[in-house]
Amino acid sequence: MRGAVLHAPGDVRVEDRDDPKITEPTDAVIRLTATCICGSDLWSYRGIEAVDGPSPMGHEYAGVVQEVGSEVGNIRPGQFVVGSFFASDNTCAICQAGYQSSCVQREPVGAEGAQAEYLRVPLADGTLVATPDIPPDDLVPSLLAASDVLGTGWFGAVAAEVGPGRSVVVVGDGAVGLLGVLAASQLGAERIIAMSRHEPRQQLARDYGATDIVTERGDDGVAKVKELTGGLGAQSVIEAVGTQESMLQAIRSTRPGGHVGYVGVAHGVELPGDELFFSHVHLHGGPAPVRRFLPELLELIWNRRIDPGKVFDLTLPLEEAAEGYRAMDERRAVKTLLRP
Amino acid sequence: MRGAVLHAPGDVRVEDRDDPKITEPTDAVIRLTATCICGSDLWSYRGIEAVDGPSPMGHEYAGVVQEVGSEVGNIRPGQFVVGSFFASDNTCAICQAGYQSSCVQREPVGAEGAQAEYLRVPLADGTLVATPDIPPDDLVPSLLAASDVLGTGWFGAVAAEVGPGRSVVVVGDGAVGLLGVLAASQLGAERIIAMSRHEPRQQLARDYGATDIVTERGDDGVAKVKELTGGLGAQSVIEAVGTQESMLQAIRSTRPGGHVGYVGVAHGVELPGDELFFSHVHLHGGPAPVRRFLPELLELIWNRRIDPGKVFDLTLPLEEAAEGYRAMDERRAVKTLLRP
Repeated sequence: MRGAVLHAPGDVRVEDRDDPKITEPTDAVIRLTATCICGSDLWSYRGIEAVDGPSPMGHEYAGVVQEVGSEVGNIRPGQFVVGSFFASDNTCAICQAGYQSSCVQREPVGAEGAQAEYLRVPLADGTLVATPDIPPDDLVPSLLAASDVLGTGWFGAVAAEVGPGRSVVVVGDGAVGLLGVLAASQLGAERIIAMSRHEPRQQLARDYGATDIVTERGDDGVAKVKELTGGLGAQSVIEAVGTQESMLQAIRSTRPGGHVGYVGVAHGVELPGDELFFSHVHLHGGPAPVRRFLPELLELIWNRRIDPGKVFDLTLPLEEAAEGYRAMDERRAVKTLLRP
Repeated sequence: MRGAVLHAPGDVRVEDRDDPKITEPTDAVIRLTATCICGSDLWSYRGIEAVDGPSPMGHEYAGVVQEVGSEVGNIRPGQFVVGSFFASDNTCAICQAGYQSSCVQREPVGAEGAQAEYLRVPLADGTLVATPDIPPDDLVPSLLAASDVLGTGWFGAVAAEVGPGRSVVVVGDGAVGLLGVLAASQLGAERIIAMSRHEPRQQLARDYGATDIVTERGDDGVAKVKELTGGLGAQSVIEAVGTQESMLQAIRSTRPGGHVGYVGVAHGVELPGDELFFSHVHLHGGPAPVRRFLPELLELIWNRRIDPGKVFDLTLPLEEAAEGYRAMDERRAVKTLLRP
């Protein structure tokens, strides 16, 4: 099959790779209908995360089951399925508490690379969720978004305790941040302040329910948020970047007793304990347990209640993955969908 | 009046000070029935926090109202009252959300030093809670404990989402940690693991409801907690120390999706963002909003349902405050009560 491999920072090539096979009786192999490039893929593409030899890329996927192992019972060949970047058994105490991305049996699905024609998914029964039928083509981008960015933005909102009547700030205008706006809107937030200085992203944020746009960053951004929230800060803040600056901006934008939901993969973050202590915020986040939300999210998409697929503003054939990376790296695209 | 003043690390003197006066119409002045020395007083006593000139010490207090300002309506002279170390209006949005220690009008009560005969308390209506009557003398230590260490341990337990059926770890065997054990027990925890290597403190922890004692620290302590919790870590962990080591021990003892309630005043803590991200814990804490819990705690004490005063294992006249500090510094005493 064909698949994208990162050889060095900035050097992504689509090349021939071995077809994945069932290796455990709990595996499934799926033929990918669509896959995509994640903001977190850019950490290694930009050389910020070390690249240790050629690395198959991608961890977001939606497609049709080709084959299942002998112990797979819920998932059947022919079904259209969506899964998360961590395989999970969905039965252990951690999964049952809703933290499937910390499942005691978890495995990264992306290890073999989802930017490819086929993908092996471990723990298929616990990991994959099937749609009612093969979806119409125009729903595929939204279903693919559920695999990571929608589920991650949703978790950010849930971790930030977004709910009816609450004021919400979203730090980060990438796909996760934008879908954090969508999640906040669906969860009933009264006011949604999106931090963004990019006009097309501001527009999408507004489409998804943002009531205010703040273009300032750092302390100026915090001051603006305070101004919009009666001097107190927001009740819920979704952090969707993962840098020291964005984490501190999120914490400082939150009122005492408020909640920060952080889903940007932390890079080089060191939180000062004394500031955190006196901030009085709740802090929760981490790798999103997307599996917790998948049934609900797939239903919302199937019934066309939400349209998270709009975050894909560039669609390319898998063979042109390198251009997809370049476009995101240069911020010409929010998110690139790849068609194998 | 007489009051304790820290002149330099290790140098506490009880000396003549000006009697406090009503300076704002919302003030009250109380005659202290009892006051005490806090673990957090030791940070400056030990020179870890800088001492900038002679500092009146103490922020825990219980006593009888002598005089109130013209705008004080709820609190009357003659009442026995308990208050917290932060004065709060108890009416702003932050107070109403239960975070009185971040009140928009907050003032540190301790600025004038509560280890004294009299104390001015700002925002008396919002800050002070009266008991039904003048208490019998044997209830005074417990009522005084409510002023800080009980309220702080209680907040640690609430921040850690302690509840029926939950497994709880308490890091720290000072007065706050021990009263965190008591709080966890009152809040219905199923299993309470106290981290302590001091026999008398272990005994008090057991008296307060600890089901297990772990003497190991650091990674060994974490391993022991995992062993006691099915390999997963505890659902709720109360951190009551405030050092880098204790914070990491608390986070690492918590299962994914579990809750850390941290109330040890952070000193030199830098939390590694990546470890926190992948830990999947909820983190909440800070200066305890004791005022939120005071009505409930005073009622539990008044009705002799709890006996937090047992953490005072040394009682001295105010004049002997220096010996009280020495005893706590040398860990000869858990907590010293001072009688003015």
